[in-house]
Amino acid sequence: METSGAHLCPMPIATGKLKQQLRVIVFGASTPSGRLFDLVLLALILISVALVFLESVSEVRERYGLALRVAEFTITGLFTAEYLIRLWISERRLAYAVSFYGLVDLLAIIPTYLSLLVPGSQALAVVRALRLTRIFRVLRMLEYVAEARLLLVALYASRHRIIVFMLAVLAMVTVFGAIMYLVEPHEAGFTSVPRSIYWAIVTLTTVGYGDIAPVTPLGQAIAAGIMILGYAIIAIPTGIVSVEIARQTERLKQRHCASCGKDVKLADARFCPHCGKAL
Amino acid sequence: METSGAHLCPMPIATGKLKQQLRVIVFGASTPSGRLFDLVLLALILISVALVFLESVSEVRERYGLALRVAEFTITGLFTAEYLIRLWISERRLAYAVSFYGLVDLLAIIPTYLSLLVPGSQALAVVRALRLTRIFRVLRMLEYVAEARLLLVALYASRHRIIVFMLAVLAMVTVFGAIMYLVEPHEAGFTSVPRSIYWAIVTLTTVGYGDIAPVTPLGQAIAAGIMILGYAIIAIPTGIVSVEIARQTERLKQRHCASCGKDVKLADARFCPHCGKAL
Amino acid sequence: METSGAHLCPMPIATGKLKQQLRVIVFGASTPSGRLFDLVLLALILISVALVFLESVSEVRERYGLALRVAEFTITGLFTAEYLIRLWISERRLAYAVSFYGLVDLLAIIPTYLSLLVPGSQALAVVRALRLTRIFRVLRMLEYVAEARLLLVALYASRHRIIVFMLAVLAMVTVFGAIMYLVEPHEAGFTSVPRSIYWAIVTLTTVGYGDIAPVTPLGQAIAAGIMILGYAIIAIPTGIVSVEIARQTERLKQRHCASCGKDVKLADARFCPHCGKAL
Amino acid sequence: METSGAHLCPMPIATGKLKQQLRVIVFGASTPSGRLFDLVLLALILISVALVFLESVSEVRERYGLALRVAEFTITGLFTAEYLIRLWISERRLAYAVSFYGLVDLLAIIPTYLSLLVPGSQALAVVRALRLTRIFRVLRMLEYVAEARLLLVALYASRHRIIVFMLAVLAMVTVFGAIMYLVEPHEAGFTSVPRSIYWAIVTLTTVGYGDIAPVTPLGQAIAAGIMILGYAIIAIPTGIVSVEIARQTERLKQRHCASCGKDVKLADARFCPHCGKAL
Repeated sequence: METSGAHLCPMPIATGKLKQQLRVIVFGASTPSGRLFDLVLLALILISVALVFLESVSEVRERYGLALRVAEFTITGLFTAEYLIRLWISERRLAYAVSFYGLVDLLAIIPTYLSLLVPGSQALAVVRALRLTRIFRVLRMLEYVAEARLLLVALYASRHRIIVFMLAVLAMVTVFGAIMYLVEPHEAGFTSVPRSIYWAIVTLTTVGYGDIAPVTPLGQAIAAGIMILGYAIIAIPTGIVSVEIARQTERLKQRHCASCGKDVKLADARFCPHCGKAL
Repeated sequence: METSGAHLCPMPIATGKLKQQLRVIVFGASTPSGRLFDLVLLALILISVALVFLESVSEVRERYGLALRVAEFTITGLFTAEYLIRLWISERRLAYAVSFYGLVDLLAIIPTYLSLLVPGSQALAVVRALRLTRIFRVLRMLEYVAEARLLLVALYASRHRIIVFMLAVLAMVTVFGAIMYLVEPHEAGFTSVPRSIYWAIVTLTTVGYGDIAPVTPLGQAIAAGIMILGYAIIAIPTGIVSVEIARQTERLKQRHCASCGKDVKLADARFCPHCGKAL
Repeated sequence: METSGAHLCPMPIATGKLKQQLRVIVFGASTPSGRLFDLVLLALILISVALVFLESVSEVRERYGLALRVAEFTITGLFTAEYLIRLWISERRLAYAVSFYGLVDLLAIIPTYLSLLVPGSQALAVVRALRLTRIFRVLRMLEYVAEARLLLVALYASRHRIIVFMLAVLAMVTVFGAIMYLVEPHEAGFTSVPRSIYWAIVTLTTVGYGDIAPVTPLGQAIAAGIMILGYAIIAIPTGIVSVEIARQTERLKQRHCASCGKDVKLADARFCPHCGKAL
Repeated sequence: METSGAHLCPMPIATGKLKQQLRVIVFGASTPSGRLFDLVLLALILISVALVFLESVSEVRERYGLALRVAEFTITGLFTAEYLIRLWISERRLAYAVSFYGLVDLLAIIPTYLSLLVPGSQALAVVRALRLTRIFRVLRMLEYVAEARLLLVALYASRHRIIVFMLAVLAMVTVFGAIMYLVEPHEAGFTSVPRSIYWAIVTLTTVGYGDIAPVTPLGQAIAAGIMILGYAIIAIPTGIVSVEIARQTERLKQRHCASCGKDVKLADARFCPHCGKAL
């Protein structure tokens, strides 16, 4: 559907043809060349993220530092070429450049070039891990897009309830954190209200590091209360999301009867179960 | 709807007008001035809670102690003015003063004044964190009230089941705590039955601090049993609340009978179940 | 309904009357005297369990040892009297004596008497904590019995699925435990296969004490896999129980139409929504 | 149904008879001899796995090493006999040998024989724990197969959604791990990006060992965010699986149309949605 735009721009036919072919490769998910392009891109993304991992391990960095740098620049070069091609074959270049994926594509190549100017910056090295978000670009070739959308729609539809729940949780951990700051001695780790709130979150979410733990009987009693509360109220977001996923799943399967106008919930029905007419 | 009361009290017209205007600002959530008032109040609440946090961090308190005190008294002054205005413009002043929000509003200003009489009391400082509960006052300007009510209704409707579940959990942790007190040596942290029950709660709720952990094979076997139990029975509150949220959500989408006006809960009913008329 | 039995036994009328009255008090939950009896019993149970807790705290035992002993023997005396009365007023004494509650009632008094023969036995002291199970006797006076039964019915109806799930979890932790025993050094705490399985359970159930934690990269990678698995499969028991609770709740509200015989799901319907006939 | 094959092979009648009888014992779950065989096999599997456990505990190994070896070889001998019998009585021997259960049966006996050639290899000892998977062979004698299949069908039907969820979780822990690697000092345990990702998984799944824990305020704030996120998004797999289990359970209770024989999923349908005939 994007090929129509090629007719509109007055450009040399050879360039137009090349652009056309590149579009099929880059945007086409169902053509063989499009699938190959997606697979290569997927591999490059995973390798480039693995490079970030390996570089952060000091023994590996010391031993294979040069090889990692070479691999990094090779991949950045390929990503740069890809970015320029995408920019070139876009119908609306500016729109692509400022779009979400356009920025992600740009962010994937900038850190490496910057690291030439600001050598030794670890922050830049790690920003490259964000390349992993490019992986969602490639997922369109899978059948998972509809499922992912259903989950997002379910989460979006229940956002009000989730926000209300989150606000209540935040209010609870603040109050519990403040109380524990009073009850527990500073030596046990409750040295300030924010730190006590951090502990309350660790406890309510049932993470339970144990780096800060109550030592007084009263503090342990309150902690036990927070734990049981956290154990019970996890039912609320679960209930909210379950109901919404059920509703969205149901909506996917509904048709209407042409005779009586009622919903037909059965996906493979051939006759309306309400009036008996053929669908 | 509260303006009608103004006509009934014989008061000077100027004061009546001011009262009227203040009511629009304080109670009105849909007028521009009402929204602005809510936003300012929200900001003040968040700042005042942030002050409590900052004051509890010893380094911050030592450095910026004076500035924090000044900010604290400024905000308390504003809250005091707000409290007096609310009291003044109320139709029924006593009813407001003893209502939940009236007490919360009062509790938000008293600790600071008390701290002048009892200097150095940290407890008073922390009680101020309860101001955060005032935040729910402001939430009416959001669309979240209906959603919050649905969740509360769902929790209220399933309270019997949740209490039964909680009692069973309490009985279980008591029995398991008593058993572990016998099985495990005191050196491992199981120094008393209440402390062992505390450990059982930490384990059953899957928090798992690790400050107390079984060391004998028998104790570890029992602990493993408690863990798997806790992992499995979390399904119960989740099931309870899911079912109730689904029911309440369903109730929201009901149809009404044109004849008798009552709710028709059955999605594909052909006759009103209340009056028998065809729908 | 148990009063009819009193007529059948040929006993002096005075004793029969007393028995009758005692039955009303002990078994009757709706009469004022029955409610009072239940409340006193509830208080005694809670106090007696609190005594077990207090006695296990060494400082309390040293200071108030004598007072605790006196209170313990007083309560045991009262429980003994209650047990003898229950035995006396039972229609079928042997049936009561060997029933679940009969044994619980007996178990509640024996440990204290035994402790006179075997002084200093802590095990006997702690067995008294099982008295807490007597609390379920008193719960009949609450409206919670029906709700508790619904939950038990839901759990019972889904027992096959839960057992299958549990077997799969046990097989998984065994295999993961065996693998971790090979992968991790003994110094990290993986000293035997059972201990490694204990660690796998701690991890899969997301308890996470941290007393045993993997230290090798490979071990940490496997551990991360177990965590994500445990985080995801908790959905299964939750789903099983949710579905069953929903079904049982639905069943509670169903009636049948006398005209067409179909289910009427609406609890307060007056007309059948299928055929329009009055119910 | 497998007896028909016996007629086709030209073999001495005596051997054929023995084969027939063995088949009834080995494959028959409903005959008394078949049940006994299953029970003995179940016991042998559990004992052989218990031997692996005991052998891994160093004190037990030192004391009862010889007895354990003898028991191990006895059980391996019995498993070998069973394997040979199964091979002999199979209709299609190669198909059995390369089938899943065929390989599991072979894997259950090989390690012990190999340990004669490579003495002292612990890896071989532990591989024997995989024998536990043979337990699923015996489960057919229970009524749990249908329930297990329903759970597997529900998981299979929701695999797309679960994979999408897992990918999102992996992307999140990668990004959070990279951020924490930058924010937290190496001394706190965040020594490399993979290790930080390991920590992020420990935190997001609410396991929370505490072997690595953030120490800076910023790191603790991010950690608190990850915890709340992990606490909330567990609702998603739970919702997905609940909906699918509900759907599969519903499918089990369907009615059938008397005219066309197809499933009628709508509980209160009056006409078959497949052929239009009145039900």
